[in-house]
Amino acid sequence: MPRLVMKFGGTSVADLERIKNAASKVRREVENGFDVIVIVSAMSGKTNELVGWVNQTSPMFDAREYDAIVSSGENVTAGLLALSLQEMGIPARSWQGWQVPLMTTSAHGAARIEEIPTDNLDAKFSEGMQVAVVAGFQGIADDGRITTLGRGGSDTTAVAFAAAFAATRCDIYTDVDGVYTTDPRIEDKARKLDKISYEEMLELASLGAKVLQTRSVELAMRFKVRLRVLSSFEDQTDNSGTLVCDEEEIMENKIVSGVAYSKDEAKMTLVSVADRPGIAAAIFSPLAAAGVNVDMIVQNISEDGRTDMTFSCPTDHVAKAEAAMEAAKASGEINFHGLIADRDVCKVSVVGIGMRSHAGVAAQMFEALSAEGVNIKVITTSEIKVSVLVDRKYMELAVQALHDTFGLETAA
Amino acid sequence: MPRLVMKFGGTSVADLERIKNAASKVRREVENGFDVIVIVSAMSGKTNELVGWVNQTSPMFDAREYDAIVSSGENVTAGLLALSLQEMGIPARSWQGWQVPLMTTSAHGAARIEEIPTDNLDAKFSEGMQVAVVAGFQGIADDGRITTLGRGGSDTTAVAFAAAFAATRCDIYTDVDGVYTTDPRIEDKARKLDKISYEEMLELASLGAKVLQTRSVELAMRFKVRLRVLSSFEDQTDNSGTLVCDEEEIMENKIVSGVAYSKDEAKMTLVSVADRPGIAAAIFSPLAAAGVNVDMIVQNISEDGRTDMTFSCPTDHVAKAEAAMEAAKASGEINFHGLIADRDVCKVSVVGIGMRSHAGVAAQMFEALSAEGVNIKVITTSEIKVSVLVDRKYMELAVQALHDTFGLETAA
Repeated sequence: MPRLVMKFGGTSVADLERIKNAASKVRREVENGFDVIVIVSAMSGKTNELVGWVNQTSPMFDAREYDAIVSSGENVTAGLLALSLQEMGIPARSWQGWQVPLMTTSAHGAARIEEIPTDNLDAKFSEGMQVAVVAGFQGIADDGRITTLGRGGSDTTAVAFAAAFAATRCDIYTDVDGVYTTDPRIEDKARKLDKISYEEMLELASLGAKVLQTRSVELAMRFKVRLRVLSSFEDQTDNSGTLVCDEEEIMENKIVSGVAYSKDEAKMTLVSVADRPGIAAAIFSPLAAAGVNVDMIVQNISEDGRTDMTFSCPTDHVAKAEAAMEAAKASGEINFHGLIADRDVCKVSVVGIGMRSHAGVAAQMFEALSAEGVNIKVITTSEIKVSVLVDRKYMELAVQALHDTFGLETAA
Repeated sequence: MPRLVMKFGGTSVADLERIKNAASKVRREVENGFDVIVIVSAMSGKTNELVGWVNQTSPMFDAREYDAIVSSGENVTAGLLALSLQEMGIPARSWQGWQVPLMTTSAHGAARIEEIPTDNLDAKFSEGMQVAVVAGFQGIADDGRITTLGRGGSDTTAVAFAAAFAATRCDIYTDVDGVYTTDPRIEDKARKLDKISYEEMLELASLGAKVLQTRSVELAMRFKVRLRVLSSFEDQTDNSGTLVCDEEEIMENKIVSGVAYSKDEAKMTLVSVADRPGIAAAIFSPLAAAGVNVDMIVQNISEDGRTDMTFSCPTDHVAKAEAAMEAAKASGEINFHGLIADRDVCKVSVVGIGMRSHAGVAAQMFEALSAEGVNIKVITTSEIKVSVLVDRKYMELAVQALHDTFGLETAA
């Protein structure tokens, strides 16, 4: 039998009615001839409740106990979904991480999957089990203690199972019906993509299109797992959702696939830094040590031995960044006249694998923004992405202008 | 290090504050020099919530999934209590049933403990762990699936651990402060017992004094585990609560230790049954087959080849009993003129290991009841117990009269 992995997130199994709905989607795939491995999250809200209890009991908690406690939410959903499938006459059973066993490192709270031996599930499939419902987000370390995989762990679990069991596809059921050319709340001409490459999805995920966790897309790309994102709340056809796949599977491609944005960016400027060899390291090493996620970096030309250094980081890292810079100044490592934090900015990006073979995307982007009077503050580029930092008030305008200029409302 | 087992029920770990309170009781025993094994129930209400979900999802549920789901409540408490102890600086860790492993039969939902290998916990104790917090009520079957032990499973878990680890004592923390000579709500002269024998406790437990589950007392008696019942909500001394122990450990003993009662009893009378050899079997075999718990049985003297047969059973078994008797009548197995169910009765019992060596207890009991005008409907006796069925309206009066006549308000 071909294998299929299906994953249901917390909102898709939020109550008994939704669990039943998820079961009917699984039944559809069983009827399509698949042996199915279902990965489930905890009912939405449950994990937060458990995490809250842990934090209240022990603010500097032992991560091993955290894992033992928090993983219980997924176990409940796995059992309930198995029962729901049994009610439909489908031979199903639940599997907790340690029963599979899903072997992980012992980095509790953020463990990495090391191995998924297929023997146990294979044996049950050959005995007639049609669906294995696996508690996501959890595994077991060598010492027999329960681990969890950290944020987005259930998506990662799903992709890892799809790789281990050579599944035809890994379907991620969520509360959106696919990946769009941009956010439909900002641009009503946004169009759902039928397919998108791993590389593009990675750029979009890390840019704040929170459909899939970055880590699960990376894993899918590495093991060539075909990943489909689709809605739990709609009836399915074989073409529902968006398929995240190898670029070779995508016949025609636009140069730009999507426009992404991120609101929680801040622009930090160190004014009049003494410019000398090694100054960049002297600034960014303490920032890294303080755990500040620096994204874009721009250095002005030097004048009279001094320069301005600008970088962006998440808004909730601003305080850490300021503290790190003031400390570095106090210790004499760096010297600057002022530190300006501008939280009134946002990042807008165009992403497309076609950029690799087409020049001029950045130029077209800047022209489109200029035509709308949008001033660009910082620019960065990668092989398949151009990002700009602009004033927050221009965000919607910029997204719409870029969606238009690259013709994203129509299919390739 | 001497070992101590402590067990906290659902109300004793109902919220984070109470879990912290339980932790402080554990700390006291660690400071007393014990290595402690703590057995915990789920936070009160949690198990019912999970059971409710199971029943709603699948009324004829797969008991294996039931076990996997319902056992999650204890796992949460175990982790939280371990964290709470760590916060107090005590090296503690949680253990789920399969991690110990607590090996059981595969009778899911009502599994029996088969073995508790001590190696894993012993190894951790020798590495410096001072407290093992074990999720109660659960184990693992040979096939690697999670089992639960059925009602009162956490008490049974506690006693089994105490036996396996040769613990000095097994302390059951609950919401009452011990075992009383009778229910203090009925008799305000009721006195807390310092010690009670296993045999007496068994009679009291099965008579409705729901302090300890019968099964756990049986197990304690079998393995000579000294069992202490005490309150989670009071400060402890070394003499808190009631010790359930071997009768040899109880120096002085009254003839009668306690007066128990049970309200959910019904008296059933088969009127004018054709009396013949084998008639008792013909009546009670179908009742047993129908799952009716018959307690007391009285057969009147026979007259003209017919007799009245009276028995008692729990009130919620009356319907089953009636159906079984009517069916037996319809099939011609038995013949009777009428079937009278009297739900307006109750059972009152005096229990005491001293009865073995003292005659006249029954007579003294009947006299005391007679003096109060209480009519006795059915009588049964065992080696250490005399029970009578009386009209429900006399229950409080009967309990008070018996408590008085056997002088239970003062210690031996």
